Amino acid sequence: MTDMQNTNWIAVDWGTTHLRAWHLSASGTELASASSDKGMGKLSADQFEAALLELIIPWLGDTRTPVIACGMVGARQGWIEAPYRTVPCTPLDAGLIPAPTKDPRIEVLIIPGISQTAPPDVMRGEETQVAGFLALNRDFDGVLCLPGTHTKWVHVSAGEIVSFQTFMTGDVFACLSDHSVLRHSVTADGWDATAFAEAVADAIAKPQSLAARLFSIRADGLLNGLPPATARARLSGLLIGVELAASRPYWLGQQIAVIGSAALARAYVDALGQQGVPAVLAGGNAMTLAGLSAARATLKDPSQ
Amino acid sequence: MTDMQNTNWIAVDWGTTHLRAWHLSASGTELASASSDKGMGKLSADQFEAALLELIIPWLGDTRTPVIACGMVGARQGWIEAPYRTVPCTPLDAGLIPAPTKDPRIEVLIIPGISQTAPPDVMRGEETQVAGFLALNRDFDGVLCLPGTHTKWVHVSAGEIVSFQTFMTGDVFACLSDHSVLRHSVTADGWDATAFAEAVADAIAKPQSLAARLFSIRADGLLNGLPPATARARLSGLLIGVELAASRPYWLGQQIAVIGSAALARAYVDALGQQGVPAVLAGGNAMTLAGLSAARATLKDPSQ
Repeated sequence: MTDMQNTNWIAVDWGTTHLRAWHLSASGTELASASSDKGMGKLSADQFEAALLELIIPWLGDTRTPVIACGMVGARQGWIEAPYRTVPCTPLDAGLIPAPTKDPRIEVLIIPGISQTAPPDVMRGEETQVAGFLALNRDFDGVLCLPGTHTKWVHVSAGEIVSFQTFMTGDVFACLSDHSVLRHSVTADGWDATAFAEAVADAIAKPQSLAARLFSIRADGLLNGLPPATARARLSGLLIGVELAASRPYWLGQQIAVIGSAALARAYVDALGQQGVPAVLAGGNAMTLAGLSAARATLKDPSQ
Repeated sequence: MTDMQNTNWIAVDWGTTHLRAWHLSASGTELASASSDKGMGKLSADQFEAALLELIIPWLGDTRTPVIACGMVGARQGWIEAPYRTVPCTPLDAGLIPAPTKDPRIEVLIIPGISQTAPPDVMRGEETQVAGFLALNRDFDGVLCLPGTHTKWVHVSAGEIVSFQTFMTGDVFACLSDHSVLRHSVTADGWDATAFAEAVADAIAKPQSLAARLFSIRADGLLNGLPPATARARLSGLLIGVELAASRPYWLGQQIAVIGSAALARAYVDALGQQGVPAVLAGGNAMTLAGLSAARATLKDPSQ
């Protein structure tokens, strides 16, 4: 059997649209990394092993290499379902789910997602980032914001996830930018920090006006030549502002960290700053890796 | 020149995605109708005449036939731009814009859209429905709600449009149903009136929670097997409820009529009814035709 604790291993972040893998030494040094667009959404259950091997074959040796994976790879439509654990609970426990493999050189274990009964909510992948953040900040008590396609606000206390809430903000932003009438008004990049700040303030003050403010982006383009980068920042600010209005019970009077990719996490930190709420920023990939390492540390060496 | 008042004529409703035409007698009797999917969005300026002729050639005779058109056909990307008139103004005046034609059998006139300077807003096509409604209800003073891809709330007084506001509710519904993670949860049809009513009430009470409630539709599907028709009605109810929360200054204490296609207009009438606000329902096509007839009535016979 594999000596889980004293061998090189592979960390995998497998979402709906992307697959990322890191080759790590027993002590946690990053030896290599690779990624592909073979996300869970594109694969049937029997295609996961090949999609993974494509990336990691150069890293495999004579002994069996442990692979620890998080994210949508454990969904019902994934490699194998890793059933949700339910809050309140620690972000990780030792119950990793083995995935069926044919290649004897790998042993794949999947981290379960977490669900909440009322109000109904689910996460897959973010629990690993929360675990990573807590591994690096053992005494943290407060709220973690994880912006993305489906932004999570997570209340953490005494090492457990107490409750959480998902906002579809990123998904709505992408849908509206790409498919609504605003596709004529909004660029794919470019930013206007003033327009963002104004839109956040506007949306927090009057969140119910969202659908009307959205159309005014279009009308302002037609009548007044609103620049597309300003339109993009305004759309983002309106959606994040409405989210902050609704997530106020999560962030008000709490210690807050925002975990995510640089530009998006920065926008959330800026928007919270406008509300007089300081938030620290932690890198998304770094927290994922720290969480996968924490999951590996829970494994007993079965040969002992 | 054409005798505008004493000849058969053609009424045209030309939106972004569809083209509809009616052949009418001088006295307004409907002789025939036709439609195609050659909306403004699919055509360049020199393709409009052919797209129209395709539908109406069987109706043309020896004398020149007047064609009165409303909608996106008059946009900057349309057949010819019919510049916006600005509120406050009557929904129609005699200033119809002639479109360039090669076929001597038709004379095409386009109804201008209406704009508002602050907050910036625009309409094209709805002004014709408003004109139609006012032609049939001369003393109406109150608010018209015109649900659609871009729902308009229009304040009408003394025969003029005083102000209006557009909500992107229908566009957002279509984007989220077709392109967000909710595409897995929501059917293309089916309805659940109770779920709709609950979602409307929920969204009016707490409009800022929209992005969170949206994701709970997905989570409720994953955890509790929420039926797709219930998911669809809940999504619709959340979006219409948020719209009602924001449009309250328009409908509170006002006489209201909802103008639109049966199912969608019915949903708005139901949602308003829940708030204790009675609203009458007027058919969308009927109001468009009445408005195009009113536009024709403004034309002087140039031969006299």
